Amino acid sequence: MNVHTPATPSVTAEPRPGSKKVYAPGVLHPELRVPFREVELHPSAKEAPVTLYDPSGPYTDPSVSIDIAAGLARTREAWITGRGDVEAITGREVLPVDNGNVSAERAAPIFPNLPKVLRAKAGVAVTQLEYARRGIITPEMEYVAIRENMRREQAAAVIRDGEDFGAAIPDYVTPEFVRDEVARGRAVIPANINHPELEPMAIGRNFLVKINANIGNSAVTSSMAEEVEKMVWAIRWGADTVMDLSTGRNIHTIREWIVRNSPVPIGTVPIYQALEKVGGVAEDLTWEVYRDTLIEQAEQGVDYFTVHAGVRLPYIHLTANRVTGIVSRGGSIMAKWCLAHHKESFLYEKFDEICEIMRAYDVSFSLGDGLRPGSIADANDRAQFAELETLGELTHRAWDKGVQVMIEGPGHVPMHKIKENMDKQLAVCGEAPFYTLGPLTTDVAPGYDHITSAIGAAMIGWFGTAMLCYVTPKEHLGLPDRQDVKDGVIAYKIAAHAADLAKGHPSARAWDDALSRARFEFRWEDQFNLGLDPETAREYHDETLPKDAHKTAHFCSMCGPKFCSMKITQEVRDYAKTKAEAEAGMAEMSEKFKAEGGEIYVPAE
Amino acid sequence: MNVHTPATPSVTAEPRPGSKKVYAPGVLHPELRVPFREVELHPSAKEAPVTLYDPSGPYTDPSVSIDIAAGLARTREAWITGRGDVEAITGREVLPVDNGNVSAERAAPIFPNLPKVLRAKAGVAVTQLEYARRGIITPEMEYVAIRENMRREQAAAVIRDGEDFGAAIPDYVTPEFVRDEVARGRAVIPANINHPELEPMAIGRNFLVKINANIGNSAVTSSMAEEVEKMVWAIRWGADTVMDLSTGRNIHTIREWIVRNSPVPIGTVPIYQALEKVGGVAEDLTWEVYRDTLIEQAEQGVDYFTVHAGVRLPYIHLTANRVTGIVSRGGSIMAKWCLAHHKESFLYEKFDEICEIMRAYDVSFSLGDGLRPGSIADANDRAQFAELETLGELTHRAWDKGVQVMIEGPGHVPMHKIKENMDKQLAVCGEAPFYTLGPLTTDVAPGYDHITSAIGAAMIGWFGTAMLCYVTPKEHLGLPDRQDVKDGVIAYKIAAHAADLAKGHPSARAWDDALSRARFEFRWEDQFNLGLDPETAREYHDETLPKDAHKTAHFCSMCGPKFCSMKITQEVRDYAKTKAEAEAGMAEMSEKFKAEGGEIYVPAE
Repeated sequence: MNVHTPATPSVTAEPRPGSKKVYAPGVLHPELRVPFREVELHPSAKEAPVTLYDPSGPYTDPSVSIDIAAGLARTREAWITGRGDVEAITGREVLPVDNGNVSAERAAPIFPNLPKVLRAKAGVAVTQLEYARRGIITPEMEYVAIRENMRREQAAAVIRDGEDFGAAIPDYVTPEFVRDEVARGRAVIPANINHPELEPMAIGRNFLVKINANIGNSAVTSSMAEEVEKMVWAIRWGADTVMDLSTGRNIHTIREWIVRNSPVPIGTVPIYQALEKVGGVAEDLTWEVYRDTLIEQAEQGVDYFTVHAGVRLPYIHLTANRVTGIVSRGGSIMAKWCLAHHKESFLYEKFDEICEIMRAYDVSFSLGDGLRPGSIADANDRAQFAELETLGELTHRAWDKGVQVMIEGPGHVPMHKIKENMDKQLAVCGEAPFYTLGPLTTDVAPGYDHITSAIGAAMIGWFGTAMLCYVTPKEHLGLPDRQDVKDGVIAYKIAAHAADLAKGHPSARAWDDALSRARFEFRWEDQFNLGLDPETAREYHDETLPKDAHKTAHFCSMCGPKFCSMKITQEVRDYAKTKAEAEAGMAEMSEKFKAEGGEIYVPAE
Repeated sequence: MNVHTPATPSVTAEPRPGSKKVYAPGVLHPELRVPFREVELHPSAKEAPVTLYDPSGPYTDPSVSIDIAAGLARTREAWITGRGDVEAITGREVLPVDNGNVSAERAAPIFPNLPKVLRAKAGVAVTQLEYARRGIITPEMEYVAIRENMRREQAAAVIRDGEDFGAAIPDYVTPEFVRDEVARGRAVIPANINHPELEPMAIGRNFLVKINANIGNSAVTSSMAEEVEKMVWAIRWGADTVMDLSTGRNIHTIREWIVRNSPVPIGTVPIYQALEKVGGVAEDLTWEVYRDTLIEQAEQGVDYFTVHAGVRLPYIHLTANRVTGIVSRGGSIMAKWCLAHHKESFLYEKFDEICEIMRAYDVSFSLGDGLRPGSIADANDRAQFAELETLGELTHRAWDKGVQVMIEGPGHVPMHKIKENMDKQLAVCGEAPFYTLGPLTTDVAPGYDHITSAIGAAMIGWFGTAMLCYVTPKEHLGLPDRQDVKDGVIAYKIAAHAADLAKGHPSARAWDDALSRARFEFRWEDQFNLGLDPETAREYHDETLPKDAHKTAHFCSMCGPKFCSMKITQEVRDYAKTKAEAEAGMAEMSEKFKAEGGEIYVPAE
């Protein structure tokens, strides 16, 4: 069901198969409508529907008309203006250079429904961190609490089976818990006051592990319509935030379309656009150009900025003997600037001024790891950890200004060096959320780095990383297309959920158990619908056993009817039950067995 | 280059792109020709070619004519008969029931070049374990030593950077080390005396982590030609052993074709065929039918048998309250038999007789985990560990008979419960090699279980598992096709290599470093050719930047020429070098910086 005006590009707007969009209200803020994806099970299951976390926004709600030229509903506007600490301003004028001086014929269409720009009243910090410190439970915080619980208050029992390495995950998330986590800096709620279309979400070690998908055009390829659809597509499969890493022409215009249509936080790396503004010559970057870019993007509603302020002049020579030097784009740009001018980075020098800008819009920091390792050989080296220590220093400076902070992490790291990254980050960054790219656990599989990195991502997520930045199969090779975005998101949903399970997150296990019961009982449709990708699961099943009857058959193509272990197990259970109930029957058989001179049954735990 | 007679089915017989097949001779046994895949690098690299482990057999050697109706060269025949402890026998007559009483018109063609069957002289154990205990370094052992070293004696320095959890990996593998590992039972060399086509390989914690690919027709689908090609295809991408899990008609005949053409060890689960022989009715299984099947398959040359002798009657009731009961096919068959007769398993009762058969052909045990967990909920439960303890008991009984042993492991296990599996296996099975299926770290991703399980496989491989049984994307849904086999093998090569790296295996890092240098220096062809899948890497690159010129371009499509971090890093290095050499230049700049009142550079480690 694609609902949009014919003049604007089509986006994927239809429900996920077998799922229903449902909403839960707030208590402190009854007007909240917190979305979930509910999977109804076959009546034979005699089980309640399964509630899943749902970042896909209104695009999967058939009752919502989607018109990307109008943008999404501006639900947060009332919450933001209701706080009385922002004012509408004229805003910065859009300049030709913002779009790379694109020619008229190549210009992307302007978003037709530009909102008024908001900014904090003079000197005020309008951040969730600031509110949290003042003891205010914002609607955003209550929204997050309801969302994180995934209605687990309805579950009969909360399963706590995991190793969380010192995290503090509660059985049940209260709005006050969210407030406290944000106040401590252990969680961020990226939520620019100019992004009222946002459905608030939290990133923190004591919440569900989140994933980010990168999109963005480049100097080489792609267009506005593609990028908006990529965002919609990425969140459909489960991306919790989206970073727009565009570097080509039309980037201001494309960003506007993305933000106006995004229910998830949007992140950017402002240095990319700043570099475009100076013709791509790193040495020509200035604080003024960068500052102007921060304001430009903050006014558009970008929710978090990657800022590579830890790439300091004194660290650059530490990369000289690396196998892969500096692989972060932002990091290499700043390194070149520092060396060319032989000056300390202006991002580091002007950090307090950057904080002043970000607190006026509630843009969160994602402190970039510009010196992250680009190969197994360079993992955990002095350059990487020197930068991390500076990120720790900057975290505290940002917190002093009331700005929310998360910290970016590597990269390429072999398994035995992953935990050291997490431990060091927790130690030096005061438990600010860690946000890692992978890490990739080997360099030898170009074309499969969604897998090399899902291994590392699952592990570091278990150890405490709050958000995992996806890697697609095209990493190191080319630009991800639609299929790559989906493959990357699914690989990272797997990593994030495996991490939640291993941490013993109380919302995690119910999902696996529901799917496993469906699998064991041959409820094929339930198994598909509960999976991360119902369409692919169904398609794989149908390749071998296409007939509809096989969807209810009590066997599958792997073994055929005679060899089906699950069928045999059912028979084993049934056999036991004929003697009474299973346990009683076993006890009786045990006695019989003993009488015959055999061993007794091994006692159950 | 497909070289075969037109009458027989075609298999994939051509070199891997960018790779050359090379052979190393033995010292103790100069006639050995141990294969490697050598990747030649671009002259600009000024680096020696990279040597990679190569299980693909003669199929990737353009100098070998492939005719699957003739089978591979029977290189080991002279070694085996040279030991003077075997005799040619008439062998068991092939019965119609061996092929499921297939009708004449549906019968697969008989392999036309049937070899003579060998068996140990009366009472003798002709196993590698037995020879090792006697202090004999067999050609198989020296072959393995050369193979495992991957010519690392040619490397300038051996990199030992890892955490091996108490393994004993030497800097350099000597034939004596292999002998000692086999004698201790810490490694197996699966090598049936009736499989002289085999290129010997070792499975053990102190060797490179190996992977297995399952193939096999089923009651529902597939044919002989497909299965032989699946084997060739699986080893082409890196499978170290192949299990034939066929359960349909023609399985004796198909197995013959597979073994005669396989350079890697072939494993089977004999209970599958035994069950076919009794019409699929588990209760009708007898020791006699099973015994007959062991001999049938041992005479064909199967190298290892999965035997579910740990599924004992006293343990079966422990599965009654599981979410997914018994999911192992072999396990459920034996459970049903035990309950139906209310008797202890004949596999357990007749274990010594099974050993007598296996030692007469050097078939290795793969002691099956019939009670492995089929869901996250059932991981590490009493049923699973009760069986594992019995496998430990059986390991020692098999060793007493001179039979080689490995132990199968789970299954579905969340990350925080993986290490306990490895630790317990090491403790109760006397360091016999562990051979695990995954484990899958979550149940929620049908269609992507190669990824859910690659995460667990990499971790358990790191902890000490010697061989990882692959899982394909079709797991739980359907039968793997060609693409699924490849996807499964590649995911598991990633897991195995990530494990080798994390263990600090001295042959592991050189591969990653060579690829990373190629990546950093924009040697695109070298990056492709060094990767696990050159074709896919090249294809992904070409989707965005198809022109040949871009293969030498010093940028790629992700960032374009202006934003390329690697290019900028090169400029950073060049900049430093203009002042002298990099380090000297940095020192000078540091002084200058201090003179200007700045901080000094952070000292390198």
